[in-house]
Amino acid sequence: MAKLIECIPNFSEGRDEKIIQGLVSIAKSIQGVTLLDYSSDASHNRSVFTLVGDENGIQEVAFQLVKYASEHIDMTKHQGEHPRMGATDVVPFVPIKDATTAECVEISKKVAKKINDELNIPIFLYEESASNPSRTNLAKVRKGQFEGMPEKLLEEEWVPDFGERKIHPTAGVTAVGARMPLVAFNVNLDTDNIDIANKIAKIVRGSGGGFKYCKGIGVMLEDRNIAQVSMNMVNFEGTPLYRAFETIRFEAKRFGVNIIGSEVIGLTPAKALIDCAEYYLQIEEFDYGKQILENHLLN
Amino acid sequence: MAKLIECIPNFSEGRDEKIIQGLVSIAKSIQGVTLLDYSSDASHNRSVFTLVGDENGIQEVAFQLVKYASEHIDMTKHQGEHPRMGATDVVPFVPIKDATTAECVEISKKVAKKINDELNIPIFLYEESASNPSRTNLAKVRKGQFEGMPEKLLEEEWVPDFGERKIHPTAGVTAVGARMPLVAFNVNLDTDNIDIANKIAKIVRGSGGGFKYCKGIGVMLEDRNIAQVSMNMVNFEGTPLYRAFETIRFEAKRFGVNIIGSEVIGLTPAKALIDCAEYYLQIEEFDYGKQILENHLLN
Repeated sequence: MAKLIECIPNFSEGRDEKIIQGLVSIAKSIQGVTLLDYSSDASHNRSVFTLVGDENGIQEVAFQLVKYASEHIDMTKHQGEHPRMGATDVVPFVPIKDATTAECVEISKKVAKKINDELNIPIFLYEESASNPSRTNLAKVRKGQFEGMPEKLLEEEWVPDFGERKIHPTAGVTAVGARMPLVAFNVNLDTDNIDIANKIAKIVRGSGGGFKYCKGIGVMLEDRNIAQVSMNMVNFEGTPLYRAFETIRFEAKRFGVNIIGSEVIGLTPAKALIDCAEYYLQIEEFDYGKQILENHLLN
Repeated sequence: MAKLIECIPNFSEGRDEKIIQGLVSIAKSIQGVTLLDYSSDASHNRSVFTLVGDENGIQEVAFQLVKYASEHIDMTKHQGEHPRMGATDVVPFVPIKDATTAECVEISKKVAKKINDELNIPIFLYEESASNPSRTNLAKVRKGQFEGMPEKLLEEEWVPDFGERKIHPTAGVTAVGARMPLVAFNVNLDTDNIDIANKIAKIVRGSGGGFKYCKGIGVMLEDRNIAQVSMNMVNFEGTPLYRAFETIRFEAKRFGVNIIGSEVIGLTPAKALIDCAEYYLQIEEFDYGKQILENHLLN
């Protein structure tokens, strides 16, 4: 069966419907690629596309979209709330089926090289593709934004992974990389005290000494008057959802607080939830690839 | 997106490799249909095919397979351990994606009519397609087997749903129907007492007063010296796996017995397990169709 890879490019245009539709046309025109979703935000002035495709199709569509963006988006005129450094700001590749993160790293490097060779846009590799640890975090890579990039590229530690040490005059700089699928998973507590949610978030998240692949903060759900531990599970195989959930459950007890529900936001790979069913039902020797009927139907 | 329907025809031939490969060739030749699996058992002298396809393809492949079986399998010479009444013994249709049981009932009736019209094989509709409650259970429909069918068809209550009251001379009688996907789910106990497993099985299964869509028996796993509650979950939406599992857990306590693991045998629809993750993680307002990434990739 064909490998299936997801790509979620972010473009610095969320207002001009003509340009957005131009990107949509390209996204739909490449053989072996499906446009799952796209959304634009006018205040961020940014659009996010979600595509899946085979190994070749996903590389082709990523390149063609970056090319179109570089020809139609002028960063010297861009304004918007969301941090950004390029017409195409970031291009992550994610393994979905029969593909590994290592393969997505290879793909990200091939696409990065082609973008630079043919479009002359300097590239930072980030996340799993990063050439050194200070480049794994996108926020650090993007710091300074479009306006600060000409200077940043001249700093010793910010030589681009591909390209010369100067920005593309209108398309800026693009980050390309591989990462695991991300699951947005929030756990609701029966308290209106956000401090408790913040304390628990700190316990479960990697940066607080908790689970390596979990990011989290406390959030107040004003309409329900309850506090929530809002998490990004950035590698659900390394840190499964149930492990964060059960940890929140027993840590909340210290405060006399209980879990009253949870939310999964947006798209999630089936395996992130099936892994949880496997845990709770104590299923022995389950073979996800072979035993899930739908896995035999994907391409 | 296209509807996806599964068909699992059972043929009364598990020894003659030439005939089995003839069926395989047909299974692979129909546009819009994928042969997921097939297995043959020599002592049962029987083969089971697992196919999925769109609405039209699945009807065509079912008919063509029944036709081939009627031309190549002679029931007057058939011997095998498994109960059987026709060259094609049974043809169930199962809704997999964007299809309902009601639609599969319609499909089963169309295929049944065509088989009778063109091949002159009498048909019993069974399970969800049954014309009366005494025909829902396949074991009852098949009782008497191939050898007893000529007489059975003359009984008042066993007039075929399609065709005359006499068997096809070599292909016998075929049962056609619609059913929900079946999940084979076994729960292992920390006891070597099969009586306890039998008592619990009786509690959870519909026929014992338990869950309507659960069938179950106690089984001894000789190699591990433990008893098991072995279940067929015949409608995992009507009776979710977690509900049977948690009921076994609390009923086992009466005997001082604990669950030590479980097994899912063979193929299962992703939703049967994701429904369990939803329960245990207390996910609020999860939309299976929209939020599972893979659901956007199927055809």
